[in-house]
Amino acid sequence: MGGKFTYGILKFYNPCLFMLYLIGLGINDEKDISLKGIDAIKSCDAVFAELYTCPIHADLSNLEKLTSKKIQLLNRKQVEEDELVLKSAKSCDTAFLVGGDALSATTHTEIILDAKKAGIDVKVIHASSIFTAIAETGLMLYKFGKTVSLPIPQENYFPTTPYTNIKDNLDSNLHTLLLLDIGMSANKAIDVLLELEGKMNGKLFSDSSKLVVVAHLGGDSLIKYDAISNLKKMDFGIQPHALIIPSALHFHEEEFLELF
Amino acid sequence: MGGKFTYGILKFYNPCLFMLYLIGLGINDEKDISLKGIDAIKSCDAVFAELYTCPIHADLSNLEKLTSKKIQLLNRKQVEEDELVLKSAKSCDTAFLVGGDALSATTHTEIILDAKKAGIDVKVIHASSIFTAIAETGLMLYKFGKTVSLPIPQENYFPTTPYTNIKDNLDSNLHTLLLLDIGMSANKAIDVLLELEGKMNGKLFSDSSKLVVVAHLGGDSLIKYDAISNLKKMDFGIQPHALIIPSALHFHEEEFLELF
Repeated sequence: MGGKFTYGILKFYNPCLFMLYLIGLGINDEKDISLKGIDAIKSCDAVFAELYTCPIHADLSNLEKLTSKKIQLLNRKQVEEDELVLKSAKSCDTAFLVGGDALSATTHTEIILDAKKAGIDVKVIHASSIFTAIAETGLMLYKFGKTVSLPIPQENYFPTTPYTNIKDNLDSNLHTLLLLDIGMSANKAIDVLLELEGKMNGKLFSDSSKLVVVAHLGGDSLIKYDAISNLKKMDFGIQPHALIIPSALHFHEEEFLELF
Repeated sequence: MGGKFTYGILKFYNPCLFMLYLIGLGINDEKDISLKGIDAIKSCDAVFAELYTCPIHADLSNLEKLTSKKIQLLNRKQVEEDELVLKSAKSCDTAFLVGGDALSATTHTEIILDAKKAGIDVKVIHASSIFTAIAETGLMLYKFGKTVSLPIPQENYFPTTPYTNIKDNLDSNLHTLLLLDIGMSANKAIDVLLELEGKMNGKLFSDSSKLVVVAHLGGDSLIKYDAISNLKKMDFGIQPHALIIPSALHFHEEEFLELF
């Protein structure tokens, strides 16, 4: 008791003694967190989570049972405007759980930056992510270029940068991982690509172009490699979905993809 | 008992009922494996591991205690020539543990391919990896181009492709993750880059060029952002080390890197 009390006093006068853990939940559900992540949660006084940057299928109540900690699910406003995580880390050891790897969503680097400026010690605990899980397709991670995001087009917002970025990768003989806006199906993404083709005329996509669709990787991973005309008709089940635009394939990559 | 016996008979006649789990151990030590990975090990009759493609600091005896399974550590010959993992998966549920994410080392796609051809069901269980952990530097994953490997130069083998690949990324305003040969320090890698500069004269590297060194990420992560002339004199401790060659930095990236 005495030791714990002294430590409490020390912490009170030296905010640097508090820890903020930024913990990746991993790619698919709450069982993709690491043992290290579980240990960190158990060591904390406050535990928060967000599932808006990377909405995985995590049942947080299972993690609560496993760690005997209450987990408070936050929305974007609570994280970014109200700064609940940062405020908590100023007064007690705090864990913040996020889908995918801890920093795949660049927005959370802000929290680290602000925490470090406030003298809070930060530790990142990593987990699995779509960025590497795509190796399940047999495509080599070394042959991927820049990752490209595809937003859902709006009436006054239909950016062509995804198309030019894919073209740059293809020109360099590199595959492209195409991450889709939250809520966007692979089928919708294919429509958008074809519409971009119509605007840009770069001859990247036609009905016979072969793409890779990946869905719920790390769960019951679904991978399909086929021509756009066939992919358009398929149902890939629950999201998230992502697309890969393959460049010229290595013999081994081709052999592997043909399995799907 | 009867049910289990029937299942055994079924398995004997239908090899497709056996499972091969390819399980990522994660980025740094044995506590970076996921809960899903632990469950899979517990469900298997045979468990193998290799630490030659990605030599993390995993104490496998801790995983043995946690799962009550014996883990057999294999060398490259036992995996690739003797095919011990594949042979095992033909007769019982088998787990194969590898450092980093399960397929960061492209070589293991071969095992999946061979297993599927043999009618064995394969499941990949993902984990953390250097490919995404580099976001700890504050650099955005979306701004990375092709990942480049830097081999230790030999008397008759001093490839210049790493240099041209870095140049291609820089020309496209993309960062480069430079993965080093096993056993190669960041200091040695910097020497190799300067030697390549002497050969290639592309004006990518001089003593004042600022690079990022990352060491034992996911453990007590060490990140240094400094000029080559300073980095050359530093000791980055235990390996693995990796380098990042940053392209033009976003304001937020610069602010974050200055912390290191």
